[in-house]
Amino acid sequence: MTGAVTENAVRQLVDFRVTPPEYRHWRIDVDGQVATLTMDVDEQGGLQPGYELKLNSYDLGVDIELYDAVQRLRFCHPEVRVVVLTSGKEKVFSAGANIRMLAAAEHGQKVNFCKFTNETRNGIEDATASSGQIYLAAINGTASGGGYELALACEHLMLIDDRSSAVSLPELPLLGVLPGTGGLTRVVDKRHVRRDLADYFATRPEGVAGRKAVQWRLVDETVPRAQWQRLVAERAAELTARSARPTDASGIELTPLAKTRGAASAAGGEIGYQYVTARLDRAAACVHIEVRGPDQAAPADPAAIQQQGAAFWPLAVTRELDDLILDLRTNEPELGSWLLRTRGDPGLVLGYDDLLLNNAGHWLVNEIVHYLKRTLKRLDVTSRSMIALIEPGSCFAGSLLELALAADRSFQLLGVFTEQDPAAEPATITIGGMNLGPLPMSNGLTRLQTRFFGNEDQLAEVIRHLGSPLLADQAEQLGLVTFAPDDIDWDDEVRIAVEERASFSPDALTGLEANYRFAGPETMETKIFGRLTAWQNWIFNRPNAAGPDGALRRFGTGQRADFDRKRV
Amino acid sequence: MTGAVTENAVRQLVDFRVTPPEYRHWRIDVDGQVATLTMDVDEQGGLQPGYELKLNSYDLGVDIELYDAVQRLRFCHPEVRVVVLTSGKEKVFSAGANIRMLAAAEHGQKVNFCKFTNETRNGIEDATASSGQIYLAAINGTASGGGYELALACEHLMLIDDRSSAVSLPELPLLGVLPGTGGLTRVVDKRHVRRDLADYFATRPEGVAGRKAVQWRLVDETVPRAQWQRLVAERAAELTARSARPTDASGIELTPLAKTRGAASAAGGEIGYQYVTARLDRAAACVHIEVRGPDQAAPADPAAIQQQGAAFWPLAVTRELDDLILDLRTNEPELGSWLLRTRGDPGLVLGYDDLLLNNAGHWLVNEIVHYLKRTLKRLDVTSRSMIALIEPGSCFAGSLLELALAADRSFQLLGVFTEQDPAAEPATITIGGMNLGPLPMSNGLTRLQTRFFGNEDQLAEVIRHLGSPLLADQAEQLGLVTFAPDDIDWDDEVRIAVEERASFSPDALTGLEANYRFAGPETMETKIFGRLTAWQNWIFNRPNAAGPDGALRRFGTGQRADFDRKRV
Repeated sequence: MTGAVTENAVRQLVDFRVTPPEYRHWRIDVDGQVATLTMDVDEQGGLQPGYELKLNSYDLGVDIELYDAVQRLRFCHPEVRVVVLTSGKEKVFSAGANIRMLAAAEHGQKVNFCKFTNETRNGIEDATASSGQIYLAAINGTASGGGYELALACEHLMLIDDRSSAVSLPELPLLGVLPGTGGLTRVVDKRHVRRDLADYFATRPEGVAGRKAVQWRLVDETVPRAQWQRLVAERAAELTARSARPTDASGIELTPLAKTRGAASAAGGEIGYQYVTARLDRAAACVHIEVRGPDQAAPADPAAIQQQGAAFWPLAVTRELDDLILDLRTNEPELGSWLLRTRGDPGLVLGYDDLLLNNAGHWLVNEIVHYLKRTLKRLDVTSRSMIALIEPGSCFAGSLLELALAADRSFQLLGVFTEQDPAAEPATITIGGMNLGPLPMSNGLTRLQTRFFGNEDQLAEVIRHLGSPLLADQAEQLGLVTFAPDDIDWDDEVRIAVEERASFSPDALTGLEANYRFAGPETMETKIFGRLTAWQNWIFNRPNAAGPDGALRRFGTGQRADFDRKRV
Repeated sequence: MTGAVTENAVRQLVDFRVTPPEYRHWRIDVDGQVATLTMDVDEQGGLQPGYELKLNSYDLGVDIELYDAVQRLRFCHPEVRVVVLTSGKEKVFSAGANIRMLAAAEHGQKVNFCKFTNETRNGIEDATASSGQIYLAAINGTASGGGYELALACEHLMLIDDRSSAVSLPELPLLGVLPGTGGLTRVVDKRHVRRDLADYFATRPEGVAGRKAVQWRLVDETVPRAQWQRLVAERAAELTARSARPTDASGIELTPLAKTRGAASAAGGEIGYQYVTARLDRAAACVHIEVRGPDQAAPADPAAIQQQGAAFWPLAVTRELDDLILDLRTNEPELGSWLLRTRGDPGLVLGYDDLLLNNAGHWLVNEIVHYLKRTLKRLDVTSRSMIALIEPGSCFAGSLLELALAADRSFQLLGVFTEQDPAAEPATITIGGMNLGPLPMSNGLTRLQTRFFGNEDQLAEVIRHLGSPLLADQAEQLGLVTFAPDDIDWDDEVRIAVEERASFSPDALTGLEANYRFAGPETMETKIFGRLTAWQNWIFNRPNAAGPDGALRRFGTGQRADFDRKRV
C-alpha cells in the first residue's frame, strides 16, 4: 500500500482538460463552413521526458488536444460542416504514435493510450456520421502508421502526389506490432481494400502512393502539388453540401471544467465535480462514483438550453463523467472496481430526457445526446468491473439508468435502510425513451437490446413498463437488475461482490468483461475494440515485440530484432 | 537450425489419425437412430507424461478421439439422428481441460490446443445444424469449465438434479484465465444468458445447479436421478423427429488414411498422401503443399460415390488436407509460410464439383461438402501465412480455387515457364458453383463475398465469368489473384515474398492475418476465434496467469496467486 501511495505522490497525473490557447500541437482555423485542423506537433512537447515528437509523431498529450479540438468544433461551431485535417509540417502528414514513447511505456500504458486514441478516431467518425461535421484528410505529406490511421478515420482522403508522399502501415515490418489504432479493420471493413492487397500494403514500409493508392482504395484521390490548395478547398466546399448543420445558430462555450482532486492518501482521496464525485478506496481497490441528477426542472426549450450552455445539466454531467472515466482509467489502474451510484430526483432526470427527445432535431440537443452516447460507450470498453448500487434517493431513470445497464452487475435495495432512514422512499428504476434508441452501444444495439439479446419477449415485456418507477422486486423479476437484496443482506452482498472482484486476476476480468459486454452483432467499432485490440494487446505482451530483443525495443538501434520463430 | 532439428528428432510428433478400436477415452454405442457418445477418460492415457487425466479432464489426445468420433458418426451412420453426449464416470461429466497439462504447456501449445478443441466443438454444432445429427448433452454429473463448454456445443442440455451436480465456469476464480473454448461467447450469444447473470456465474467456482440453471438458461432442463435414464431416452427420441437423416442408407467406412512422413532432416522432409504432398523447407521456414486433382472423371451418381466411399476423390483429398493442416499446425510451428499449389485437370475438378452440387440433397454428398467447408475454415484460422502459387498444370477451379481464395496472397503465372516447358498451357483459374455458396467461411460469407466485401459491382463482374478459365492477366484484372508476374519475374517475386514473410515477427503476422481474413460480419464462430481467443491468448501470456506466481501455475499448490493488480 505504502509503495503505491509513494508512487502516486511522485508521479504526474495526466489531466485531460485542455483549452485551445494551451494547445502545443494543433491549430483550429475556422473559415465559414470549413474549419482547418492543423497538426503541428511540438517536438519538445511530449507528455513524459525521454522522447522527441519528431515528424508529427504523437503521444497521449497530442491526442488529448485532438480530442478537445474535435469536441469543441462540434459544440462551439454549429456553422462548421467540414473539417480539413492536415499537417503543418513540410512533406510529413504524421509519422503516427511515437515509437520511443511506445517502446518505453509499460504494457498498461500502451493499451490505455491505444484505447483513448481509438475512441478519439471513432469520435471523428461520429462527428461525420451524427453531427454533419465531415472530416476530410488533406494528406499533404507522408502518413505512416498511426498517421495514416488518423486519416482513415476521415470521410474523404486526399493524398498529395509529389513523388515522395505516401500512405503506409509500417508497424508490422518495422516494429513487429499491428497498426492497432483501427488501421487493419478500417482498411478492409471501411475502405474495402481487398484483403490480399491490404496484406501486401501492410508489409511495405515505404507504403503506396499515387494512382495505386487510389486504385487500391487506400485514399480517394491524389492531387499534384500545384493544384493542392485549390482542390482541397474545392472538395471541402463540395462536402459542405452533404451536411445539414444549421446556418443561423451560435455555438456554446465549453467552459473550463471545475474539478477538485484531493491529494493522494493511503486511504484514497476524492475527485469532485459539480454533479459527479469519486471517492477512491485503495484498501478495497475500488472507486465509489456518485452521479447526481439535476437540481431543478428542465428548461422549456432549445433556446433555454443554448442559454444555459455548458451549465445545462445533461451536458455538464456528461462532461464530468467523461473526464472522470479518462482520469481513473489513466491515473488509477489499481482501482479495479467502480461502484456506480446516483442521487437525485428521477422525475427531473426524465424531464431533461424528454426535453432532449422532443427536440432531437436541434443541433445542440443532437450534440449533447451523441456526446452522452460516446461517453457511455467509453464505459463499455473500460477495463474495470462496474457494479451499480441502486439505493433510496437514487435516480436511475432514463439516461442515468444506462449506467446501471452498462454495469457488469447491479444491486437494487428491496425496501429501505431501516436503521439509516426508515422513512425513505424505496429505490426505483425507470425505463425512459432514452433507453430505447438514442444511446446505442458500439454493437449498434441499445443496452436493453444487448441485455435481452435473443429474448425478444422479455424485452417487449420490459418496454411495456416504460415510464413506471420499478421497485426492486419488480426490476429483478423483469431482469433489469441482477440482485435485489433487502436491508439485512445488502451490506454483506455488496461487500462480498467487491472483495471477490478485487481477489480475481485483473487480466481475466478484463477478458471476461470484454466478451460479456458485447453480446450480439459486431460492428467496425466493436471489431476494433475486440478482435483488433485484443490481438494487439497480445502482441504488445510478447517478447517478439516488447522483450529486450524484440522489434519494438530494437527499433532505431540498428540491430534487427531476434524473433522466436514459432507461429502461435 | 541444428537445435531445431535435434528438438524435432527427439520430440514425439502428434498424430491425429485414430480409429475407434484404439480409443482410450470414448465409447460410441449406436442404437437405431440414437447414438451414445460416452466420455470415460483413461487417467493414465495422457498424450504427454506429467499429468493424470482425472475426473474426465482432457488433453489433446482425448480431443483427437472426440473429433474422430464426431466425424465417423456423420459418415458411417446415416441412420443416427441424435447423439447423446454423456459421461461414463460417477457424478462427474467432465472437469474440462487438464490443468496440469495446461500449466506445463508452452504458450503456443496452449493456443493450438484451444484452437483444435474449438474447431471440434464447432464441428459438433455443424453436425446438428448441417447434418441433422443433433447433439444432446446428458450432463450426468458436474460439468466444469471445458466440460460445460463441451456441453454448450450441444443443442439440448439436460442436467441431472442430484444435489451435487452443477454446471460451472470456474476458470476465472480458480485459474485466472477465461473459459476460452467458446464458453463466454456461447453463454451470452447462443444460450442468451443475461450478461450480468453470466458474469456472476463465471465467478462462482461451484457453479449453478437445479432450477436456477434452467431459469438462467444455462441448461434446458434438470431431471431427478430416478427419471434420468428414461427422460434422456425420451428426449433423444423426440429430437430424432427434427432430423431429416435418411432411414434407408448405409454409411461408408472412413478407412485408415495412408500417410508417409519422412524422418525429420536439416532440410525438412516430406509428408505424403495420395492426393496431397507437403515438402518441408526449414531453411526457408516454409512448406510447399501440393494438392492434386482427381485422376479420372467423376462417377455418375450418388450410388457410385457411396460405392467409392473414402476413395471418392473429394472426400479423400479433404481428409488428407485436414490431417495435413492439423499435423503442420501442431508439429511444425516454425514453418511459418505455407505455399499452396495444385496439380491436375481443372475440368475434372469441376466435374466432381458438379456431381456434388447436383446431388446436394443426398446425405453423403451433404457430409462431404460440409466436411470440405470445415476443412477450409480450419485453413482460415490457421496462424500461418498462406501464399497460393498458380502455375501451368494447376487446377485451381471451383472447390480447389477456394485454396487460393483462402490464401493471404496469390501469384498466377502470366504465360508459361519458357525454359522449363515452353509448350505448356498457361495457368488458369475457374470460378465454379462451389465458390458461390456451399463453402462459406466462419463469417457466413463465401470467400468471394469476403474478398469483395463492400464492392458488390466487382463481385457481380467476377460471377459473370463463372465457368470460364481465366488467364493471369484477366484474373488479376478481376481481382481474383494478387499478382500476375511473368516467367522473368516469377522466381524473384515469389522468393522475396517468402523470404520477407520469414523475416517478420511471427506474432504480428498472426495478428495481421486474423484481422484481414475476416472482413465483414461476425458470427458466434468468428467471435470465438477473434474476440474470445485473442483475449485468452493475451491472458495466457500474462504473468498473472502463466508467470511463476500466476494463478495457472499455482493452482493446486495451496498457494494463492500473486497478482499485479493493475487493470489493463
